[in-house]
Amino acid sequence: MRLLLGSGGLITPERREAWKNELNDFLGAISRVTFLPYAGGDYTAYMKRVAELDLAAGRKVEGLHEAKNLLAEIVKAECIFVGGGNSFRLLADLYRLNLLGAIQERVRAGIPYLGISAGTNMACPTMKTTNDMPITYPPSLGALGFIPFQINPHYFTGAVHYESPAGLTKYGGETRDDRLREFHEMNDTVVVGLTEGSILRIEGNRASLRGTSFCRIFRKGQPSEDRSTGSDLSDLL
Amino acid sequence: MRLLLGSGGLITPERREAWKNELNDFLGAISRVTFLPYAGGDYTAYMKRVAELDLAAGRKVEGLHEAKNLLAEIVKAECIFVGGGNSFRLLADLYRLNLLGAIQERVRAGIPYLGISAGTNMACPTMKTTNDMPITYPPSLGALGFIPFQINPHYFTGAVHYESPAGLTKYGGETRDDRLREFHEMNDTVVVGLTEGSILRIEGNRASLRGTSFCRIFRKGQPSEDRSTGSDLSDLL
Repeated sequence: MRLLLGSGGLITPERREAWKNELNDFLGAISRVTFLPYAGGDYTAYMKRVAELDLAAGRKVEGLHEAKNLLAEIVKAECIFVGGGNSFRLLADLYRLNLLGAIQERVRAGIPYLGISAGTNMACPTMKTTNDMPITYPPSLGALGFIPFQINPHYFTGAVHYESPAGLTKYGGETRDDRLREFHEMNDTVVVGLTEGSILRIEGNRASLRGTSFCRIFRKGQPSEDRSTGSDLSDLL
Repeated sequence: MRLLLGSGGLITPERREAWKNELNDFLGAISRVTFLPYAGGDYTAYMKRVAELDLAAGRKVEGLHEAKNLLAEIVKAECIFVGGGNSFRLLADLYRLNLLGAIQERVRAGIPYLGISAGTNMACPTMKTTNDMPITYPPSLGALGFIPFQINPHYFTGAVHYESPAGLTKYGGETRDDRLREFHEMNDTVVVGLTEGSILRIEGNRASLRGTSFCRIFRKGQPSEDRSTGSDLSDLL
């Protein structure tokens, strides 16, 4: 399988450039991507934003939601790109539209899969390491399962501070590390905390970290381990 | 019904004092609280923390998890106190242990219900406005339904910044307001964003905001509305 999984957080030109460079290298001559905007609320606005940010690096972006026959469109797709937004809404739609099996079949047959944020979570065994709000209830948390570990997109270390009239105020709820500790209180799967701007590139039995930052690997009952951009991650496959 | 619903974020002495003062006024002579620690991972550690922070203001705190017959314990409870942690784990346990009906019956019969954070989310129609990670999959997102609106605990306005080696860095994922907007893209229910330190007190058809801060009311398709501590919220019931 060939996967390019971005953490998201493409709010800086540097991170967007890194994503586009990696995408160009990964996709090569493929000039058309089939884009799934289901994590977003307003598909038209979302497609416009993808174009404005040039997230497919000049390639033709065809929204799957505009196709008459979704499954036929997946069958002829050269590349599948699943965008970010709310992961619960995305997975609920993948089930509702009966798309999981068709996407799995195509990606296992070799076409590239691109994900950002929620789209990256979909490549994992489940969506249990999402940061999103459960605004809807998918029939299962089971996702596409292209990789054997979980990814936490938009991962960050340390405490959270929020803007308030009194200036930056420390948040009193769980940190991201608290939440991932809770995940391992109920699950055994390895989690890769993918910092914003980071990209995981997987080809067959090879995986490596690309993009602008590092990742942190969480294994149940063990200290976490950091790896910097350029590192090999094939041992996790 | 009588409900005292705290947002959480009891990391400052000022907020803890406000919670205890309100709890004393609300519970009066009741000297024993039945505490549900199921949102936490380690019940013993959690009970210790509740004692250390004195979250029941000197009252006897009996952990429901230590009872031989959970339902019998609920029947004789003078007050039910549901603590914070992970809302998915909490609700999954309430279903697994078959506790929802018994708690609903007792609270509807008049015993006080106290909630903090995840415990506050349980008083809502659903847990769809939680901030927690879906580390487990409850059979439904439907919760105790004591109030007709949703609460987002630990609510804050504005952008998030996280600690990093480079100092405070702006988070590139969704803000809390983004997440609540997503909620209203798929749901119609009113949401009260309960800032940290805020407490919602409900008695029969009267509701008011207590504690140290304000709340923000989100109605689908309308501008949000702020109310300060001391405000009446009975119109939301």
